[in-house]
Amino acid sequence: MEPIRAPRGTQLTARGWQQEAALRMLMNNLDPDVAERPQDLVVYGGTGKAARDWPSFRALVRTLTTLAPDETMLVQSGRPVGVLQTHEWAPRVLIANSNLVGDWATWPEFRRLEALGLTMYGQMTAGSWIYIGTQGILQGTYETFAAVAEKRFGGTLAGTLTLTAGCGGMGGAQPLAVTMNGGACLIIDVDRARLERRVATRYLDVIADSLEAGVRLAVEAQIARQPLSVGVVGNAALLVPELLRMGVPVDIVTDQTSAHDPLSYVPSGVEPEDVADYAARKPEEFTERARHSMARHVEAMVGFLDRGAEVFDYGNSIRGEAQLGGFDRAFAFPGFVPAYIRPLFCEGRGPFRWAALSGDPADIAATDRAILDLFPENESLRRWITMAGERVAFQGLPARICWLGQGERDKAGLRFNEMVADGTLGAPIVIGRDHLDTGSVASPYRETEAMRDGSDAIADWPLLNALVNTASGASWVSIHHGGGVGIGRSIHAGQVSVADGTELAAQKLARVLTNDPAMGVLRHVDAGYEDAVEVAGSAGLRVPMGESA
Amino acid sequence: MEPIRAPRGTQLTARGWQQEAALRMLMNNLDPDVAERPQDLVVYGGTGKAARDWPSFRALVRTLTTLAPDETMLVQSGRPVGVLQTHEWAPRVLIANSNLVGDWATWPEFRRLEALGLTMYGQMTAGSWIYIGTQGILQGTYETFAAVAEKRFGGTLAGTLTLTAGCGGMGGAQPLAVTMNGGACLIIDVDRARLERRVATRYLDVIADSLEAGVRLAVEAQIARQPLSVGVVGNAALLVPELLRMGVPVDIVTDQTSAHDPLSYVPSGVEPEDVADYAARKPEEFTERARHSMARHVEAMVGFLDRGAEVFDYGNSIRGEAQLGGFDRAFAFPGFVPAYIRPLFCEGRGPFRWAALSGDPADIAATDRAILDLFPENESLRRWITMAGERVAFQGLPARICWLGQGERDKAGLRFNEMVADGTLGAPIVIGRDHLDTGSVASPYRETEAMRDGSDAIADWPLLNALVNTASGASWVSIHHGGGVGIGRSIHAGQVSVADGTELAAQKLARVLTNDPAMGVLRHVDAGYEDAVEVAGSAGLRVPMGESA
Ligand SMILES: NC(=O)c1ccc[n+]([C@@H]2O[C@H](COP(=O)([O-])OP(=O)(O)OC[C@H]3O[C@@H](n4cnc5c(N)ncnc54)[C@H](O)[C@@H]3O)[C@@H](O)[C@H]2O)c1
Ligand SMILES: NC(=O)c1ccc[n+]([C@@H]2O[C@H](COP(=O)([O-])OP(=O)(O)OC[C@H]3O[C@@H](n4cnc5c(N)ncnc54)[C@H](O)[C@@H]3O)[C@@H](O)[C@H]2O)c1
Repeated sequence: MEPIRAPRGTQLTARGWQQEAALRMLMNNLDPDVAERPQDLVVYGGTGKAARDWPSFRALVRTLTTLAPDETMLVQSGRPVGVLQTHEWAPRVLIANSNLVGDWATWPEFRRLEALGLTMYGQMTAGSWIYIGTQGILQGTYETFAAVAEKRFGGTLAGTLTLTAGCGGMGGAQPLAVTMNGGACLIIDVDRARLERRVATRYLDVIADSLEAGVRLAVEAQIARQPLSVGVVGNAALLVPELLRMGVPVDIVTDQTSAHDPLSYVPSGVEPEDVADYAARKPEEFTERARHSMARHVEAMVGFLDRGAEVFDYGNSIRGEAQLGGFDRAFAFPGFVPAYIRPLFCEGRGPFRWAALSGDPADIAATDRAILDLFPENESLRRWITMAGERVAFQGLPARICWLGQGERDKAGLRFNEMVADGTLGAPIVIGRDHLDTGSVASPYRETEAMRDGSDAIADWPLLNALVNTASGASWVSIHHGGGVGIGRSIHAGQVSVADGTELAAQKLARVLTNDPAMGVLRHVDAGYEDAVEVAGSAGLRVPMGESA
Repeated sequence: MEPIRAPRGTQLTARGWQQEAALRMLMNNLDPDVAERPQDLVVYGGTGKAARDWPSFRALVRTLTTLAPDETMLVQSGRPVGVLQTHEWAPRVLIANSNLVGDWATWPEFRRLEALGLTMYGQMTAGSWIYIGTQGILQGTYETFAAVAEKRFGGTLAGTLTLTAGCGGMGGAQPLAVTMNGGACLIIDVDRARLERRVATRYLDVIADSLEAGVRLAVEAQIARQPLSVGVVGNAALLVPELLRMGVPVDIVTDQTSAHDPLSYVPSGVEPEDVADYAARKPEEFTERARHSMARHVEAMVGFLDRGAEVFDYGNSIRGEAQLGGFDRAFAFPGFVPAYIRPLFCEGRGPFRWAALSGDPADIAATDRAILDLFPENESLRRWITMAGERVAFQGLPARICWLGQGERDKAGLRFNEMVADGTLGAPIVIGRDHLDTGSVASPYRETEAMRDGSDAIADWPLLNALVNTASGASWVSIHHGGGVGIGRSIHAGQVSVADGTELAAQKLARVLTNDPAMGVLRHVDAGYEDAVEVAGSAGLRVPMGESA
């Protein structure tokens, strides 16, 4: 089969730009430069797919190509199941992926139904056709460290030293995210090859020959207020305590080793190449040793906490495992969502992203300039956009991601629409976001962990979010189950809108890009976050329970 | 507190008829003539509520009263959480009730969150403001028996004898539903008071002094092709086998005793007044005896099956309990959904209902005539509408329910809209339906039990249904969890539209009342039902997977 590649340029394959955008983004998700395993329709995240099977993919393409501007195509877990007449304000595509009735929402039942050809795993942006490659994880990590900088270090990491471990598929974004924020970073990985891969792609600056050499380099950069990332080969369960003993002046500590799975975390005294065999042969003994090591690792992290460092769990469950390993102060530091992301969510901030349907990188460069022009006061945004322009290699259609909040997303969307209208851009822009956003997900182990009012598991919000976007003029809207954390553990929604330069698109964008983040602000108002109440107030959002009779 | 009663007539309290309709239907759901426990905001179905608490109710009323015609109010489990600017084709209200992330979708977790004030149980039409009282269960039962008549007896039950048991809250609709279909009915209940209550409301014609007398009366009516319902006091586990032995020429057998709960089904040899005490004292012994009795009861039902009778399980789980009681042919007869309701669902048929905002019963009488005029060839519909007009006492705003299918609902809705426009009706009509409908529910123990392709637990469909109605012009749209069968066991969606006589309403009604049942037809096409394929074909519904490349 020919590799799939989205059409570029201004020639329409479909009957309008909204349909064309869905068609191109579906195909772009399966571009070999974007997808992990395009031959299996897998985009990312293990088995997150763009279409259920090849007949479904072909029917999706066929239907999008012929869909009228007042029709809507329905997609049920990656398969088109109908076309209905709606109206021009309605989405052109409505998507529901991987959803199961609660009592059946388990991996075994999901796999059984998948094997019967009745469903597929949509992850977040795989089945909703707005994945843009690894830029997403880099930006998310950048944003987290920017939030740390904002909270404790006056808005920049310049002059700070971050200590972390785990330089794998996700964790490997950490060194670049820290240096993009101006900081120095020491990153430990037990596997030299992982560090070398990140040096090759310029995510990591250098690998030190020894712990001492690494510390020297990193501390020099810290003192000189220079960005620098330094890799050190070794086991975090040994080296983090050692760094604590050495009294290294670390400001920030986190971790992205594969701690969520005690058969993946390498216990001290075990060589990485022996892990697979040992874990398979003696899983219980291995687990016990891994948890014991994690207890030592987390004990040292708490040691840094006690010395005043900013310490957080980066979503790998290392606190829980360390507690099982016998360390009882494991939960002395918080998870990253309650600590840094939730305050952003309260402002309606989240992973705003867009792609250029022209295929022309110059269009993204122009939108980058527009963003800088629109939000000149936002220093962290300026830093990200500038460095992303230099460092991020596009995968598939040129795209950009940055976090914008209530009152900003609509501004950006309307500006892009003007730029399409006045010819500054070569073709329309699609504007979407991750399902991991302020008001679009219920996921008690991640995005909605430890909500102030205890509403972690309430799933009304992502459903309302999808309904609101459908009612506001989005081009396609999706409701998924299980993304990020697995079947049974989350429900989330997505929207994508098209800036095609028309006045109608402007009206739609104004509503969608106001209402979509507003769902997040309102969700946090309802949960009792004062920041959200403030943002709702200044954005003029109407909150019925807050009004007097 | 003053009892709540919806305003009547043409004077608007709100800023438009869509908002006014939502306001009146919310209030109507809590009218003491409609609601089970209005003081607790409970409408029906145990704890199905219209609003989360009194402050929420007041905020809903306040917000609906001021809502602009291009604004949308968001309701999260019975509480208004925001108002956003949308557009005139968008719903005025979007509702998500009782939804929980899968792993947390249990009664204990739900109760915990409810106690924290974070959610409420919305049932189906309680939290979505379109409950119309007990007419619903009567019509549903009527429709089931009409489907039995259609399948086996040439479209009428005249000349047939139906044997059933259980004359309680739901089961008590059976005798009237059978006679409305022209049939004779023998109904057994162990509790004389239950039969007497139904005689008082004219749902049951007579109570016989003995089994023999009851049989004589019923068989006479059967031979004379006269509708007649006869109650007999006794235990079904004894009397059903006795009737089999007697060789009574029964045509149809079913049951609505409280078999779903083995502590409610009265074992043979136990007096109804001793049940509560005995079940509480010795629950295990009681359960064993009840299951043993159900085994005898179902064994006799299968005996009738073997003699050629039409036999079905009416959703009370008696087959499963009888199997546990040791009878191994319990599943020899089918459940009512696969047997009778699914064929209707394949045609997009379901519980279409409407209410007159004027409050004037004459408006419903006029719509009844319109329905008869529109569908003169539908004999069972004619019979229902005629008898309902004579027998059904209105509760709250006058309302009517009848099952209509693909291509019929839109005709009815448009006719009602014309009748509002030309002044035939005193005020606008709201048009909605139960969530128990052809394309709006995933519920593996009831509506989607035993789907042909095994897709019982796939929950994408009700979510797509809600999105489609939102995209088609409905006035309010809802997504609920757990209605009918409990938390963790179902996901379902509702829509209500307003016929206010305007041209815009006509355009919206044409789309919503076509697309809403179409979701059901498409769902059954996808599951492999040929009837649905045929209906989709004649309705001109586009099915992408069925089109050639
Ligand atoms: N924000 C989030 O919620 C979020 C996002 C992504 C990943 N994660 C979590 O972060 C973790 C890492 O994800 P990934 O995709 O990078 O995993 P990965 O398996 O690709 O990488 C894990 C890395 O940890 C290293 N490692 C294992 N044990 C070690 C030890 N004792 N000392 C030093 N290094 C060790 C491995 O060599 C490997 O390079 C996972 O637990 C994942 O669930 C969370
Ligand atoms: N279509 C559906 O899916 C559907 C709808 C409604 C009710 N149901 C089921 O139907 C059943 C009845 O519902 P209900 O609300 O009428 O219940 P209910 O408790 O109000 O009535 C049950 C009746 O059964 C009688 N009864 C119990 N044991 C008996 C015995 N051995 N012999 C004769 N009579 C006996 C009781 O006296 C009582 O009148 C329940 O199991 C319910 O779940 C199913």
